[in-house]
Amino acid sequence: MADYHRPDSKTVQTLKDIANKLRIHSIESTNASNSGHPTSCCSMAEIMSVLFFHTMKYRVDDPRSPSNDRFVLSKGHAAPILYGAWAEAGLFPTSDLLNLRKIDSDLEGHPTPRLNFVDVATGSLGQGLSCAAGMAYTGKYWDKADYRVYCVIGDGESAEGSIWEALAFASNNKLDNLVAIFDVNRLGQSEATAFGHDVAVYQRRLESFGWKTHVVDGHCVESLCKALHEARTTEDKPTCIIAKTLKGKGINGIEDEDNWHGKPIGAKSAEALEVIKKNIINSGPHGIYPATPTMQVPHNDISNIRLSDSPNYEIGQKVATRAAYGTALAKIGKNSKHVVALDGDTKNSTFSLKFREAFPERFIECYIAEQNLVGVAMGCATRDRTVAFVSTFAAFLSRAYDQIRMGALSMTNVNFAGSHAGISIGEDGPSQMALEDLAMFRAVSGSTVFYPSDAVSTERAVELAANTKGICFIRTSRPNFPVLYKNDETFEVGKAKIVRQSNIDQVTIVASGVTMVEAVKAADQLAANGINVRLVDPFTIKPIDKQTLADCAKSTGGKVLTVEDHYPQGGIGEAVSAALSEEKDVVVKILAVTGLPRSGKADELLDKFGISARCIVDGVTGLIKL
Amino acid sequence: MADYHRPDSKTVQTLKDIANKLRIHSIESTNASNSGHPTSCCSMAEIMSVLFFHTMKYRVDDPRSPSNDRFVLSKGHAAPILYGAWAEAGLFPTSDLLNLRKIDSDLEGHPTPRLNFVDVATGSLGQGLSCAAGMAYTGKYWDKADYRVYCVIGDGESAEGSIWEALAFASNNKLDNLVAIFDVNRLGQSEATAFGHDVAVYQRRLESFGWKTHVVDGHCVESLCKALHEARTTEDKPTCIIAKTLKGKGINGIEDEDNWHGKPIGAKSAEALEVIKKNIINSGPHGIYPATPTMQVPHNDISNIRLSDSPNYEIGQKVATRAAYGTALAKIGKNSKHVVALDGDTKNSTFSLKFREAFPERFIECYIAEQNLVGVAMGCATRDRTVAFVSTFAAFLSRAYDQIRMGALSMTNVNFAGSHAGISIGEDGPSQMALEDLAMFRAVSGSTVFYPSDAVSTERAVELAANTKGICFIRTSRPNFPVLYKNDETFEVGKAKIVRQSNIDQVTIVASGVTMVEAVKAADQLAANGINVRLVDPFTIKPIDKQTLADCAKSTGGKVLTVEDHYPQGGIGEAVSAALSEEKDVVVKILAVTGLPRSGKADELLDKFGISARCIVDGVTGLIKL
Repeated sequence: MADYHRPDSKTVQTLKDIANKLRIHSIESTNASNSGHPTSCCSMAEIMSVLFFHTMKYRVDDPRSPSNDRFVLSKGHAAPILYGAWAEAGLFPTSDLLNLRKIDSDLEGHPTPRLNFVDVATGSLGQGLSCAAGMAYTGKYWDKADYRVYCVIGDGESAEGSIWEALAFASNNKLDNLVAIFDVNRLGQSEATAFGHDVAVYQRRLESFGWKTHVVDGHCVESLCKALHEARTTEDKPTCIIAKTLKGKGINGIEDEDNWHGKPIGAKSAEALEVIKKNIINSGPHGIYPATPTMQVPHNDISNIRLSDSPNYEIGQKVATRAAYGTALAKIGKNSKHVVALDGDTKNSTFSLKFREAFPERFIECYIAEQNLVGVAMGCATRDRTVAFVSTFAAFLSRAYDQIRMGALSMTNVNFAGSHAGISIGEDGPSQMALEDLAMFRAVSGSTVFYPSDAVSTERAVELAANTKGICFIRTSRPNFPVLYKNDETFEVGKAKIVRQSNIDQVTIVASGVTMVEAVKAADQLAANGINVRLVDPFTIKPIDKQTLADCAKSTGGKVLTVEDHYPQGGIGEAVSAALSEEKDVVVKILAVTGLPRSGKADELLDKFGISARCIVDGVTGLIKL
Repeated sequence: MADYHRPDSKTVQTLKDIANKLRIHSIESTNASNSGHPTSCCSMAEIMSVLFFHTMKYRVDDPRSPSNDRFVLSKGHAAPILYGAWAEAGLFPTSDLLNLRKIDSDLEGHPTPRLNFVDVATGSLGQGLSCAAGMAYTGKYWDKADYRVYCVIGDGESAEGSIWEALAFASNNKLDNLVAIFDVNRLGQSEATAFGHDVAVYQRRLESFGWKTHVVDGHCVESLCKALHEARTTEDKPTCIIAKTLKGKGINGIEDEDNWHGKPIGAKSAEALEVIKKNIINSGPHGIYPATPTMQVPHNDISNIRLSDSPNYEIGQKVATRAAYGTALAKIGKNSKHVVALDGDTKNSTFSLKFREAFPERFIECYIAEQNLVGVAMGCATRDRTVAFVSTFAAFLSRAYDQIRMGALSMTNVNFAGSHAGISIGEDGPSQMALEDLAMFRAVSGSTVFYPSDAVSTERAVELAANTKGICFIRTSRPNFPVLYKNDETFEVGKAKIVRQSNIDQVTIVASGVTMVEAVKAADQLAANGINVRLVDPFTIKPIDKQTLADCAKSTGGKVLTVEDHYPQGGIGEAVSAALSEEKDVVVKILAVTGLPRSGKADELLDKFGISARCIVDGVTGLIKL
């Protein structure tokens, strides 16, 4: 603390004034929208004032500069005060704040990256710290820059396990460039939090999780300035400022009162605003310009990422698509230093291990904490700092579905590889089988869903995912499949492959992964009995190649059979049915995993649960008789 | 500790012998299946021996007796040793253990309630403790019984945030009948855990989370006996035994070695087994019979749960379905004392508050920790102790999707109510809008998905859910909708309602919730232009009423339009398309929310994102022209 100079009294007063101005903006903007969370804003007014006008270094004219300090508002419902801070910093006129929550304004109810000063969408609670930790990890270890990351967390949301995953991650990785500020305002939405104002509980827990802590009066700008300065000088540990605050602080008759969550102040505003205004010494321009970054961080070019070498297999060679994933990941890693990989202690199963072996410094082991795994990856990918690939068993990505959902709103560019798809994993049993992952990822806004059927197409899926904006999901499988495609085959998003066809095909079969293996067997058996079928590999389940499906359906008498190692809902069958739903004279028969699966050998399971070659033959035979 | 008698030396030796027998079973059964996790079993052999043959009180001949102590194996991959323990206890012959993971054996790769000694499926890590906490809460506060709950947790899985949510819940609720045993064997799947054998880290964190802790040598039966005894005498706090163990303990050359996760011992077994057998003093029958429960807990009748009073609305009255949910929940609570409700600090929005007001002692506030919320409910519902209803915003149920997925494997009976469906919530913006919840819940094995369109049908949905086995989901909405049905209207699972029809209907419209409101408006407008349409309310989206849909489609020229406040994937449109996919001459046009939604007024959003009355009119007009 030798170099600490407390801010002079004028600065202190200005910071107090700004805090009160932010209160006024929060009250007025939520009154204008007649909805929103002014009391949740008011508890953190001094925190925002000190962060944005004393502590953080950033360019107001370039909010997304890679050199800037980062700010994540984990308690996203306090959006109005974030907007107020940027308006006070000069990014846009404060009068715009009155457009809060209007359909033609980007000042939404909770922050989204439609705004250039927001990196990740928040509003589903407890997710901000993982993203902030990903940014801090990137800054410290990859950018090797001096930008710092600040994250404000509500006391209510600190009950989320994801917060504790992130806290553990940050201290494990010595993220001393990360500061979390817990806004302990005592009150949740529907009642007081479990610990109310007992800040000692937070302190004990945070210290046990390896964080340096400071308990402060969250309405005292001097204390906040000092604690934030100390954070800057603390090495090898992240800092948490536990700020004891009052919800609705400064609002007459509402401060620290229950039943004021998520409600505009309305009729009580006039009186409240008068009191707050009285506390402002200088109501004119505050005259503080945030400090700008000292170290310049260059922009990254993350376009045109290619496999360093073409796929190198022989047709018919048996390779697991999960293994091809690892191979491809290492190849794109060779060609772009911005590719990074993260896993949740399954790297030897997902084969992200191949990437770590090649580029250990670009791999993050996140241990068994999938929510944080996803959040960290999203943080790493902000401002194009990295192209992140996350892998675990596809079943366990369901653990982070809320994070993935929010990732879409964050317009994140993270790629997901989920291995061990479906019942074909065999003996490990249903807890390890992904049977809802296609439904899950298809229902993510703007997502691209790859389900490659062999090693060659898997490598291309990885390459395409690296260059496709938005959330990409690559579904890989455990067993070894025969290579179907030549090494120079080209693949595109939304373009199906016709694996087998003739002029006398009677049914179109749509299959992926293990069911393509079964479909090939079925086609052989059917052909031996004089029945030709067309085999279609959609390659991407979303977008699905409507045109090819419609054309094939038309040339096979309108008869389509889909078969998938997934539950019937939201998977290939429904994607194909919906794609063809406006076509007349087309029938689609859906084979999928029905019933509750169990342990057993893969072949036994495929047959028992209705998706084996035998079942496909039966399905085709039935369709032909229609 | 005054009453503590350490076990006599014969008992100690027998417990050691049993531990080694369990090791042998674990090695032999995984050799037989040629897959599985013997090393993860061996680290916890003494823990299992002491729990099952010294500490726990249970009837071997009635494993699911409500009077028994409960055991949850959170680290489900150690299933073989659980099976071994029950075989040694006499439930089935030890020779059955060699059927591990076979398709015709219920001894699956990870435990499921196909086995009568398993209450909840495990295998997705970090979920067991929430379930155990739900059982303990039920035992202490509702059954007021003396059964105790034991949960073994792997050190690797303790990185999961859900574990920390459960730890907080248990201490907040003073669950002194709950014991967690951390099996700190140092090694994860792909590398060592973050903390290896640093048991002090675990101890600090657990104590800060309000638990009584004991650090013990996990291979010392005396220490385990003593710590478990102390747990029994500890009041108002749950106990955690932090057991320092070695992965693969006792297996020559493999003990504490890396790269042995999830691998049978195979060729090295002969030597290993010989060493283990040498340590067994008495290889004959162990002669220990577990103590049986002293307090008898009666079975519960949870059948035939009915609303205490019929719905009481007037046609056209405007009521939010979320409000009707709360009303109905209180009504069934009045009629059955086994109905309980849980919420995650949204009770004033989901209206579960109405239940708490009526029955405060049967409501659990779980705060903002949805994973634990769901896990606790599953625990509460085991052995038919309760009929649990979980509520939060539907969007936030995505936070617990993995728990819900595992709930299906657990054959749980928990009911979920998700409020604030879709863009019709308006200004709060996309983070709060559930737009993938139908996809998510439809893809849960054996689930029932209710999407009521008015207050009357919502009340009946709640009543039906209470009596429907498996996972039920009730999707409720934020805005007030006009009541559509008479109070005495009857509803069934899988039975659609025809809301409007005539002999000259040209199109069938399938809609639910807010889109039914819009569809009624559209139908009025179309009728004014001489176009009659049929309106179908599916009531349950899964199962969907295929017959009614097909009949309606047939009588409206094969023209069907679906409209939903949900993304296009996995929702009503795809459910209807799939249901009708084998019908010739039927076209289905799907209207759903496309693009990334934003804040705005509900009406503006419905129109902008393509699901308003205007859009329906356009869609119908287009279909008619086909």
